[in-house]
Amino acid sequence: MHKETETRKRKSQLSPISQIVPVTFKYPVHFTHGLFKSGHLLLSSLLKQTKELSPKKLLCIVDAEVARLHPTLCAEMESYWLPHQEKVTLVRKPWIMAGGEACKNDTERVSHLHRAVHDFAMDRHSYILVVGGGALIDMVGYAAATAHRGIRLIRVPSTVLAQCDAALSVKNSINAFGKKNFLGTFTAPFAVLCDLDLLTTLDNRDWRSGVSECIKVALLQDASFFATIESLCEPLTSRNLTIMSRVIERGAQLHLHHIATSGDPFEMGSSRPLDFGHWSAHKLEQLSNYRIRHGEAVAIGLALDATYSHLLGKLPQSSWERIIHVLSELGFALFVPELESHLAERNHPDCLFRGLDEFREHLGGQLTVMLLEEIGRGIEVHEIDEALMKKSITTLKRRHRCTESS
Amino acid sequence: MHKETETRKRKSQLSPISQIVPVTFKYPVHFTHGLFKSGHLLLSSLLKQTKELSPKKLLCIVDAEVARLHPTLCAEMESYWLPHQEKVTLVRKPWIMAGGEACKNDTERVSHLHRAVHDFAMDRHSYILVVGGGALIDMVGYAAATAHRGIRLIRVPSTVLAQCDAALSVKNSINAFGKKNFLGTFTAPFAVLCDLDLLTTLDNRDWRSGVSECIKVALLQDASFFATIESLCEPLTSRNLTIMSRVIERGAQLHLHHIATSGDPFEMGSSRPLDFGHWSAHKLEQLSNYRIRHGEAVAIGLALDATYSHLLGKLPQSSWERIIHVLSELGFALFVPELESHLAERNHPDCLFRGLDEFREHLGGQLTVMLLEEIGRGIEVHEIDEALMKKSITTLKRRHRCTESS
Repeated sequence: MHKETETRKRKSQLSPISQIVPVTFKYPVHFTHGLFKSGHLLLSSLLKQTKELSPKKLLCIVDAEVARLHPTLCAEMESYWLPHQEKVTLVRKPWIMAGGEACKNDTERVSHLHRAVHDFAMDRHSYILVVGGGALIDMVGYAAATAHRGIRLIRVPSTVLAQCDAALSVKNSINAFGKKNFLGTFTAPFAVLCDLDLLTTLDNRDWRSGVSECIKVALLQDASFFATIESLCEPLTSRNLTIMSRVIERGAQLHLHHIATSGDPFEMGSSRPLDFGHWSAHKLEQLSNYRIRHGEAVAIGLALDATYSHLLGKLPQSSWERIIHVLSELGFALFVPELESHLAERNHPDCLFRGLDEFREHLGGQLTVMLLEEIGRGIEVHEIDEALMKKSITTLKRRHRCTESS
Repeated sequence: MHKETETRKRKSQLSPISQIVPVTFKYPVHFTHGLFKSGHLLLSSLLKQTKELSPKKLLCIVDAEVARLHPTLCAEMESYWLPHQEKVTLVRKPWIMAGGEACKNDTERVSHLHRAVHDFAMDRHSYILVVGGGALIDMVGYAAATAHRGIRLIRVPSTVLAQCDAALSVKNSINAFGKKNFLGTFTAPFAVLCDLDLLTTLDNRDWRSGVSECIKVALLQDASFFATIESLCEPLTSRNLTIMSRVIERGAQLHLHHIATSGDPFEMGSSRPLDFGHWSAHKLEQLSNYRIRHGEAVAIGLALDATYSHLLGKLPQSSWERIIHVLSELGFALFVPELESHLAERNHPDCLFRGLDEFREHLGGQLTVMLLEEIGRGIEVHEIDEALMKKSITTLKRRHRCTESS
C-alpha cells in the first residue's frame, strides 16, 4: 500500500490536468441617431432576437446630466417599449442617477443596483441599459457584471469619450481606497449603442475632451487617421456633428480592433498599449480632485509622453510638433500646475511620479509604458528617466507660458 | 447637409461593428500529497515560472477548520517559502478565516480582503492562495476576482467536494439578499492544487458528502465510472484514501472536461447540465439553515430527480434502483423533512418548489432541468410536473421509513 501511494504520488505530480477553456465574447457596436424615438427598430430588434417565451425584464438607468439636457428622454424611453410589451417589461421608470467620476467612489450605489436586481427578480437573461458617460457606465457595469455573475448590459454612451473609447471595452470598475478602478471585472457588454444625437448638448469641454482618445489611438496605430484629425480641427471645434461622428467611428473601430486582436483582452500580461499617456492622466485627475476631466488629462498625458519620447531621441521633432499642435488647436490646455506636484518628493503620495507606481501596480508585473517612435507607431519601454520626464514637464510649461503671453 | 445626415443614419444603422473577442483561460489542476512540505517542488515551481525581476507577493488564507485539524500547516506554509525568498514574498502570516457556508453571507469579509490587497499593494501579478472548503474558496475567489479586476488565485481545496467539483470551476460567489451565489463572477483560477492528505482529517460527513458530485457527473456522462463507484462503496466508506483519490480524480477529470468542452463555460445560455439534482439541493440547504451540507443535499437532489425521471417513464426501474442503492450504501440519508416544506403553498417562500423558480432565476431564461434517461445519459426538460415531483418525494419518504424500521 505504501508503495502504491508512492507510485501514485509520482504519477499525480507528473500528469496534472491542463485545463483549457476557450470563451468567445461577441457584442455589436452601433452608431445611430434618435435611438429611443418611437419606431426606431435597433433596440427593440436586439432584445427580440432571443426566442424566449416570457417578456424580458429591463432596467433603464439614465445619467442625471443627460436627463437634464434631454428633458423628454425618459418619457421617450418609456413609451418606446409600449409596442413591445409581449417581449420586454420595464421593471420601473427610468432610474436617474448622478454620473461623473464621483459616482465611482460610492460603493453604496453598487449595492442599490444589486438590491434592485434582487427586488425585481431579474435574472441573467434580463437587461440593464445605461445611458450616460463613461463613469456611470463603469459603475453600473460593475454592478451588472457581479449580480448573478452577470446581467446583460446595454451601454448607451452619451459623451464623445465614452462613444469612442470607454464604453467599447470589456471592462468595468469603481474606485476604492483612493485608487482609481481598484474594483472591477472583465466582462463584455451585450451591446453598445451610440446615439450621436446625445452629443449635441455636451458642453464644449466634454465635446472636445473625448477626441483625445481618438488622437491616442491614431498616434499608436494609424498615421493617416492622425492626419485626418489634423485636417478636421476647425469643423471639430466648431461642433460639426457629422465630422465628429466620423472621427468617433474611426476611433471606435481602431479601439475595438485592438481589443479583439491584441491577444490579451483580459490583460493577463503586463502590457497595455492603449494606455499611452495614461499613467500621468490618471494621476492628474486624482491630484486635481477630478477638476481635470479624463479626456483633458489624457490630452496632457499624450503631450507629456510625446515630449518625453522626443527628448529621449525616439520621436522626430516635426512629428512631436504636429502632436502638440493638433492638441492645442483643438483647445486642450497642455500644462496644468498638477504636473509639478511634489516632483522632488518621490515618496509623497501626491508626487506626480507616484502615478507610475500606481499604473504599474494596477496592471501588475513589470512597469510597461508606451512611448512613440513615430506618429502611428508606439514602442514599449520598461523604465522612465524621471529627470528627463521633469524636463518634458518644463518644456510643456514653457510652451504654455509662451502661448499665454503671445 | 440634411441629406448627408440621412445617408449617414442609414449607413450607420446598416453596418454595425460586430465585435468578437476570443479569450482562452488556462489553468493546471494537480493532485498531490504534502503540498507544503519543504522540498515539495510543485508550488514553488508554479510561482517561479514567470520571469519577473522582483519577488511576487503572496497572501495565504487558511480555513480555520483546516488549521485546527492540521496544527502544523500554517508554520509549514511559512517555512516552505524560506528557500524561495528571491521569487516570492509572503505579505503576512497565513490568515486564518472561518469557512463554511456562513462565510459567504458576510460581505464584510470580501471588503477585508480588498483592503488587504490595497494595504499590501498587491497587483494583478500577485497571488492569493486559499486552503479550504468550497465556501471559503468561493468567497476568497470573489474578492480576488474583483480587486484590480483579478488577482491570481491559487485554490487548495481541502474537502472531497471541493477537490472533485467546487474548486475546479471558473466561478466564484457570495450569497446576498438570502439568495445563494447572488454575487459572483466567472473567473478562471491560476491553478488548482489538490492535496489529498488534507482529506484524512475530514469528519465522516464531509468525507462522504463530496462523493455525491462524482456520482452526479458519472450519472450524466460515464456509466462505467458509475459502476466503478458502485464496486467501491466498501473501501470508500471505510476511508481508503487511495480509492477515494481515484474516484476524486476521475470525477474531476469529467467535470473539467465538461467545463472545457460544453461550449458555454460562462453560462450565457439557459442550460447548466452539471446542475443535475441541484434545484432541490440548493433549496434544502437553505431550508435547513445549512444543517444539511451541500454534498448531502446533492445526494438527496440526485435521488429525487432520479426518482422523478423514473416515475416519468424515462429511467428504467433497475437503473433507478442502482442509483438509490449506491447513495444509500455510501451512507446518505435520502429523505429529510425539508423535502415536504410547504409543498401545498406554492407561494410560500419556504415551499420546496420555490427552488425551481430560484434555480431558473439564477441561470436566467427558460427553466431547464436535467433528468436521466439512463445511467450515463442525461436529458434536459423545460417543465416539471409538480404533482409527480410530490409523488417522487413520497416515494423517497416511504423508502426511508422502510429502511428505518427494517
